[in-house]
Amino acid sequence: MTGVSRLYWDDFRAGQAFELGSRTVSKEEIVRFARAFDPQPFHVDEAAAQRYPYGGLIASGWHTASMVMRMFVDGLLAERAPSMGSPGVDELRWLKPVRPGDTVTLTLHVVETRASRSKPDRGLVIVRHELRNQSGETVMTMLSKGFFPRRPAGAAA
Amino acid sequence: MTGVSRLYWDDFRAGQAFELGSRTVSKEEIVRFARAFDPQPFHVDEAAAQRYPYGGLIASGWHTASMVMRMFVDGLLAERAPSMGSPGVDELRWLKPVRPGDTVTLTLHVVETRASRSKPDRGLVIVRHELRNQSGETVMTMLSKGFFPRRPAGAAA
Repeated sequence: MTGVSRLYWDDFRAGQAFELGSRTVSKEEIVRFARAFDPQPFHVDEAAAQRYPYGGLIASGWHTASMVMRMFVDGLLAERAPSMGSPGVDELRWLKPVRPGDTVTLTLHVVETRASRSKPDRGLVIVRHELRNQSGETVMTMLSKGFFPRRPAGAAA
Repeated sequence: MTGVSRLYWDDFRAGQAFELGSRTVSKEEIVRFARAFDPQPFHVDEAAAQRYPYGGLIASGWHTASMVMRMFVDGLLAERAPSMGSPGVDELRWLKPVRPGDTVTLTLHVVETRASRSKPDRGLVIVRHELRNQSGETVMTMLSKGFFPRRPAGAAA
Protein backbone atom coordinates (compact mmCIF):
# COMPACT_ATOMS: atom_id res chain seq x y z
CA MET A 1 0.00 0.00 0.00
CA THR A 2 1.71 3.21 -1.16
CA GLY A 3 0.78 6.72 -0.13
CA VAL A 4 -1.43 7.47 -3.08
CA SER A 5 -2.85 4.08 -4.10
CA ARG A 6 -6.61 3.68 -4.31
CA LEU A 7 -8.04 1.94 -1.24
CA TYR A 8 -10.99 -0.42 -1.49
CA TRP A 9 -12.87 -2.13 1.35
CA ASP A 10 -10.46 -5.05 0.94
CA ASP A 11 -7.49 -2.82 1.86
CA PHE A 12 -8.73 -1.79 5.31
CA ARG A 13 -7.56 -3.80 8.30
CA ALA A 14 -8.33 -3.46 12.00
CA GLY A 15 -5.40 -1.69 13.66
CA GLN A 16 -4.50 0.59 10.75
CA ALA A 17 -4.17 4.28 11.57
CA PHE A 18 -4.37 7.23 9.19
CA GLU A 19 -3.11 10.72 10.06
CA LEU A 20 -5.59 13.07 8.40
CA GLY A 21 -4.04 16.48 8.99
CA SER A 22 -4.69 19.58 11.04
CA ARG A 23 -6.96 22.58 10.93
CA THR A 24 -7.11 25.85 12.88
CA VAL A 25 -10.55 27.22 13.73
CA SER A 26 -11.21 30.96 13.99
CA LYS A 27 -13.68 32.83 16.17
CA GLU A 28 -15.47 33.96 13.00
CA GLU A 29 -15.96 30.36 11.82
CA ILE A 30 -17.22 29.28 15.26
CA VAL A 31 -19.77 32.11 15.40
CA ARG A 32 -20.85 31.70 11.76
CA PHE A 33 -21.57 27.98 12.15
CA ALA A 34 -23.36 28.50 15.45
CA ARG A 35 -25.54 31.34 14.17
CA ALA A 36 -26.78 28.99 11.45
CA PHE A 37 -27.15 25.77 13.42
CA ASP A 38 -26.57 26.10 17.17
CA PRO A 39 -27.18 29.65 18.43
CA GLN A 40 -26.71 28.95 22.14
CA PRO A 41 -25.03 31.84 24.02
CA PHE A 42 -21.74 30.01 24.63
CA HIS A 43 -21.35 29.46 20.85
CA VAL A 44 -22.33 32.90 19.50
CA ASP A 45 -21.86 35.56 22.19
CA GLU A 46 -18.39 36.12 23.61
CA ALA A 47 -19.59 38.17 26.59
CA ALA A 48 -22.48 35.87 27.53
CA ALA A 49 -20.19 32.84 27.14
CA GLN A 50 -18.18 34.05 30.16
CA ARG A 51 -21.12 33.21 32.41
CA TYR A 52 -21.28 29.54 31.36
CA PRO A 53 -19.19 26.66 32.72
CA TYR A 54 -16.82 26.82 29.73
CA GLY A 55 -15.78 30.39 30.59
CA GLY A 56 -15.63 31.63 27.02
CA LEU A 57 -16.72 31.05 23.44
CA ILE A 58 -16.53 27.40 22.31
CA ALA A 59 -17.35 25.68 19.02
CA SER A 60 -20.67 23.88 18.64
CA GLY A 61 -20.09 20.15 18.92
CA TRP A 62 -21.79 19.83 15.52
CA HIS A 63 -19.26 22.27 14.08
CA THR A 64 -16.44 20.18 15.50
CA ALA A 65 -17.97 16.98 14.09
CA SER A 66 -18.45 18.70 10.71
CA MET A 67 -14.79 19.81 10.70
CA VAL A 68 -13.81 16.19 11.38
CA MET A 69 -15.93 15.14 8.39
CA ARG A 70 -14.18 17.71 6.18
CA MET A 71 -10.75 16.45 7.25
CA PHE A 72 -11.92 12.85 6.64
CA VAL A 73 -13.08 13.79 3.13
CA ASP A 74 -9.94 15.79 2.26
CA GLY A 75 -7.56 13.24 3.73
CA LEU A 76 -9.12 10.00 2.57
CA LEU A 77 -12.58 9.89 0.99
CA ALA A 78 -12.13 12.44 -1.80
CA GLU A 79 -9.41 10.61 -3.71
CA ARG A 80 -7.90 7.62 -1.97
CA ALA A 81 -10.99 5.84 -0.72
CA PRO A 82 -14.30 7.10 -2.11
CA SER A 83 -17.12 5.97 0.17
CA MET A 84 -20.67 4.83 -0.59
CA GLY A 85 -22.14 6.65 2.43
CA SER A 86 -22.65 6.01 6.11
CA PRO A 87 -25.47 4.41 8.09
CA GLY A 88 -24.48 6.19 11.29
CA VAL A 89 -22.22 7.02 14.16
CA ASP A 90 -21.89 5.76 17.74
CA GLU A 91 -20.24 7.04 20.89
CA LEU A 92 -19.81 10.61 19.69
CA ARG A 93 -18.09 12.34 22.62
CA TRP A 94 -17.22 15.99 23.10
CA LEU A 95 -14.50 15.64 25.71
CA LYS A 96 -12.95 19.11 25.81
CA PRO A 97 -14.08 22.46 24.40
CA VAL A 98 -12.72 23.65 21.05
CA ARG A 99 -11.93 27.36 21.40
CA PRO A 100 -11.11 30.13 18.90
CA GLY A 101 -7.57 29.74 17.56
CA ASP A 102 -7.30 26.04 18.48
CA THR A 103 -5.52 23.78 16.00
CA VAL A 104 -7.05 20.31 15.88
CA THR A 105 -5.46 17.18 14.39
CA LEU A 106 -7.37 14.11 13.24
CA THR A 107 -6.30 10.48 13.48
CA LEU A 108 -8.48 7.68 12.16
CA HIS A 109 -8.14 4.18 13.61
CA VAL A 110 -9.67 1.22 11.76
CA VAL A 111 -11.61 -0.82 14.34
CA GLU A 112 -13.37 -3.47 12.28
CA THR A 113 -14.27 -4.44 8.73
CA ARG A 114 -17.25 -6.53 7.62
CA ALA A 115 -18.19 -7.75 4.16
CA SER A 116 -21.82 -7.08 3.27
CA ARG A 117 -23.95 -10.21 3.35
CA SER A 118 -26.58 -8.86 0.99
CA LYS A 119 -24.46 -6.71 -1.37
CA PRO A 120 -21.31 -8.40 -2.70
CA ASP A 121 -19.96 -5.17 -4.23
CA ARG A 122 -19.30 -3.46 -0.88
CA GLY A 123 -18.32 -3.80 2.75
CA LEU A 124 -18.55 -1.89 6.01
CA VAL A 125 -15.56 -0.25 7.70
CA ILE A 126 -15.87 0.92 11.31
CA VAL A 127 -13.38 3.61 12.27
CA ARG A 128 -12.64 5.53 15.44
CA HIS A 129 -11.98 9.21 14.83
CA GLU A 130 -9.79 10.90 17.40
CA LEU A 131 -9.43 14.68 17.33
CA ARG A 132 -6.70 16.30 19.44
CA ASN A 133 -5.85 19.93 20.10
CA GLN A 134 -2.47 21.70 20.04
CA SER A 135 -1.88 20.65 23.68
CA GLY A 136 -2.33 16.98 22.81
CA GLU A 137 -5.69 16.76 24.59
CA THR A 138 -8.32 14.58 22.93
CA VAL A 139 -11.26 16.90 22.27
CA MET A 140 -13.63 14.64 20.33
CA THR A 141 -13.97 10.96 19.49
CA MET A 142 -16.56 8.93 17.59
CA LEU A 143 -17.07 5.54 16.01
CA SER A 144 -18.24 5.96 12.45
CA LYS A 145 -19.45 3.36 9.97
CA GLY A 146 -18.97 3.67 6.24
CA PHE A 147 -19.66 1.55 3.18
CA PHE A 148 -16.75 1.15 0.78
CA PRO A 149 -16.69 -0.61 -2.62
CA ARG A 150 -14.84 -3.92 -2.84
CA ARG A 151 -11.87 -4.14 -5.19
CA PRO A 152 -13.18 -4.95 -8.65
CA ALA A 153 -11.78 -8.05 -10.35
CA GLY A 154 -8.71 -6.97 -12.29
CA ALA A 155 -8.07 -3.73 -10.31
CA ALA A 156 -4.43 -3.31 -9.26
CA ALA A 157 -3.80 -4.36 -5.67
CA MET B 1 -46.56 22.91 33.05
CA THR B 2 -47.85 25.51 30.58
CA GLY B 3 -46.62 26.12 27.06
CA VAL B 4 -44.18 28.87 27.90
CA SER B 5 -43.02 28.06 31.43
CA ARG B 6 -39.30 27.70 32.08
CA LEU B 7 -38.22 24.07 32.27
CA TYR B 8 -35.49 22.95 34.66
CA TRP B 9 -33.92 19.49 34.94
CA ASP B 10 -36.55 18.72 37.60
CA ASP B 11 -39.34 19.18 35.04
CA PHE B 12 -38.19 16.51 32.57
CA ARG B 13 -39.73 13.04 32.90
CA ALA B 14 -39.11 9.86 30.92
CA GLY B 15 -41.97 9.47 28.44
CA GLN B 16 -42.49 13.18 27.72
CA ALA B 17 -42.55 14.15 24.06
CA PHE B 18 -41.97 17.60 22.57
CA GLU B 19 -42.95 18.55 19.02
CA LEU B 20 -40.20 20.87 17.84
CA GLY B 21 -41.46 22.04 14.46
CA SER B 22 -40.67 21.59 10.80
CA ARG B 23 -38.13 22.88 8.33
CA THR B 24 -37.81 22.65 4.53
CA VAL B 25 -34.32 22.23 3.10
CA SER B 26 -33.35 23.65 -0.29
CA LYS B 27 -30.83 22.35 -2.82
CA GLU B 28 -28.79 25.52 -2.25
CA GLU B 29 -28.55 24.87 1.51
CA ILE B 30 -27.57 21.22 0.94
CA VAL B 31 -24.80 22.17 -1.49
CA ARG B 32 -23.56 25.12 0.61
CA PHE B 33 -23.18 23.00 3.76
CA ALA B 34 -21.54 20.15 1.88
CA ARG B 35 -19.05 22.41 0.06
CA ALA B 36 -17.88 23.62 3.47
CA PHE B 37 -17.89 20.37 5.42
CA ASP B 38 -18.65 17.26 3.37
CA PRO B 39 -17.79 17.73 -0.33
CA GLN B 40 -18.51 14.18 -1.46
CA PRO B 41 -20.03 13.99 -4.97
CA PHE B 42 -23.49 12.89 -3.81
CA HIS B 43 -23.76 16.01 -1.60
CA VAL B 44 -22.39 18.70 -3.96
CA ASP B 45 -22.76 17.58 -7.59
CA GLU B 46 -26.24 16.88 -8.91
CA ALA B 47 -25.02 15.08 -12.05
CA ALA B 48 -22.40 12.94 -10.30
CA ALA B 49 -24.93 12.11 -7.57
CA GLN B 50 -26.98 10.17 -10.15
CA ARG B 51 -24.25 7.54 -10.30
CA TYR B 52 -24.36 6.75 -6.57
CA PRO B 53 -26.75 4.41 -4.76
CA TYR B 54 -28.95 7.33 -3.64
CA GLY B 55 -29.72 8.30 -7.25
CA GLY B 56 -29.56 12.06 -6.67
CA LEU B 57 -28.35 14.85 -4.44
CA ILE B 58 -28.79 14.20 -0.71
CA ALA B 59 -27.96 16.25 2.37
CA SER B 60 -24.79 15.45 4.32
CA GLY B 61 -25.70 13.55 7.46
CA TRP B 62 -23.87 16.27 9.40
CA HIS B 63 -26.09 18.87 7.78
CA THR B 64 -29.16 16.91 8.82
CA ALA B 65 -27.84 16.56 12.38
CA SER B 66 -27.03 20.29 12.46
CA MET B 67 -30.57 21.12 11.31
CA VAL B 68 -31.90 18.95 14.13
CA MET B 69 -29.73 20.92 16.55
CA ARG B 70 -31.12 24.21 15.23
CA MET B 71 -34.69 22.99 15.66
CA PHE B 72 -33.82 21.78 19.18
CA VAL B 73 -32.40 25.22 20.05
CA ASP B 74 -35.29 27.16 18.51
CA GLY B 75 -37.97 24.90 19.95
CA LEU B 76 -36.64 24.30 23.45
CA LEU B 77 -33.12 25.35 24.45
CA ALA B 78 -33.20 29.03 23.48
CA GLU B 79 -35.96 30.11 25.83
CA ARG B 80 -37.82 27.33 27.60
CA ALA B 81 -34.97 25.15 28.76
CA PRO B 82 -31.48 26.65 28.47
CA SER B 83 -28.91 23.87 28.54
CA MET B 84 -25.44 23.71 30.09
CA GLY B 85 -23.98 21.75 27.17
CA SER B 86 -23.73 18.14 26.05
CA PRO B 87 -21.16 15.43 26.69
CA GLY B 88 -22.16 13.48 23.61
CA VAL B 89 -24.51 11.54 21.39
CA ASP B 90 -25.12 7.82 20.82
CA GLU B 91 -26.82 5.77 18.14
CA LEU B 92 -26.88 8.52 15.51
CA ARG B 93 -28.59 6.87 12.54
CA TRP B 94 -29.17 8.20 9.04
CA LEU B 95 -32.04 5.96 8.00
CA LYS B 96 -33.28 7.61 4.80
CA PRO B 97 -31.77 10.30 2.56
CA VAL B 98 -32.85 13.93 2.99
CA ARG B 99 -33.32 15.38 -0.49
CA PRO B 100 -33.76 18.94 -1.83
CA GLY B 101 -37.25 20.24 -1.04
CA ASP B 102 -37.89 17.77 1.77
CA THR B 103 -39.74 19.07 4.83
CA VAL B 104 -38.51 17.45 8.03
CA THR B 105 -40.29 17.47 11.41
CA LEU B 106 -38.60 16.90 14.75
CA THR B 107 -39.98 15.12 17.80
CA LEU B 108 -37.99 14.81 21.01
CA HIS B 109 -38.72 11.96 23.41
CA VAL B 110 -37.37 12.10 26.97
CA VAL B 111 -35.75 8.72 27.68
CA GLU B 112 -34.12 9.16 31.07
CA THR B 113 -33.11 11.77 33.63
CA ARG B 114 -30.28 11.54 36.15
CA ALA B 115 -29.27 13.96 38.89
CA SER B 116 -25.55 14.73 38.90
CA ARG B 117 -23.72 13.06 41.77
CA SER B 118 -20.84 15.52 41.80
CA LYS B 119 -22.64 18.77 40.87
CA PRO B 120 -25.86 19.43 42.80
CA ASP B 121 -26.84 22.39 40.59
CA ARG B 122 -27.52 20.29 37.49
CA GLY B 123 -28.72 16.99 36.05
CA LEU B 124 -28.49 14.98 32.86
CA VAL B 125 -31.41 14.50 30.47
CA ILE B 126 -31.20 11.82 27.76
CA VAL B 127 -33.48 12.43 24.82
CA ARG B 128 -34.21 10.57 21.61
CA HIS B 129 -34.53 12.84 18.60
CA GLU B 130 -36.70 11.55 15.79
CA LEU B 131 -36.72 13.38 12.46
CA ARG B 132 -39.40 12.49 9.91
CA ASN B 133 -39.96 13.64 6.34
CA GLN B 134 -43.16 14.81 4.62
CA SER B 135 -44.04 11.16 3.83
CA GLY B 136 -43.88 10.20 7.50
CA GLU B 137 -40.65 8.23 7.07
CA THR B 138 -38.13 8.47 9.89
CA VAL B 139 -34.96 9.87 8.29
CA MET B 140 -32.70 10.34 11.34
CA THR B 141 -32.64 9.36 15.00
CA MET B 142 -30.14 9.88 17.81
CA LEU B 143 -29.84 9.67 21.57
CA SER B 144 -28.46 12.91 22.91
CA LYS B 145 -27.35 13.79 26.42
CA GLY B 146 -27.60 17.29 27.86
CA PHE B 147 -26.94 18.96 31.18
CA PHE B 148 -29.73 21.17 32.51
CA PRO B 149 -29.76 23.35 35.63
CA ARG B 150 -31.88 22.21 38.57
CA ARG B 151 -34.72 24.43 39.70
CA PRO B 152 -33.30 27.00 42.11
CA ALA B 153 -34.88 27.21 45.56
CA GLY B 154 -37.74 29.68 45.35
CA ALA B 155 -38.22 29.49 41.55
CA ALA B 156 -41.85 29.07 40.52
CA ALA B 157 -42.76 25.45 39.77
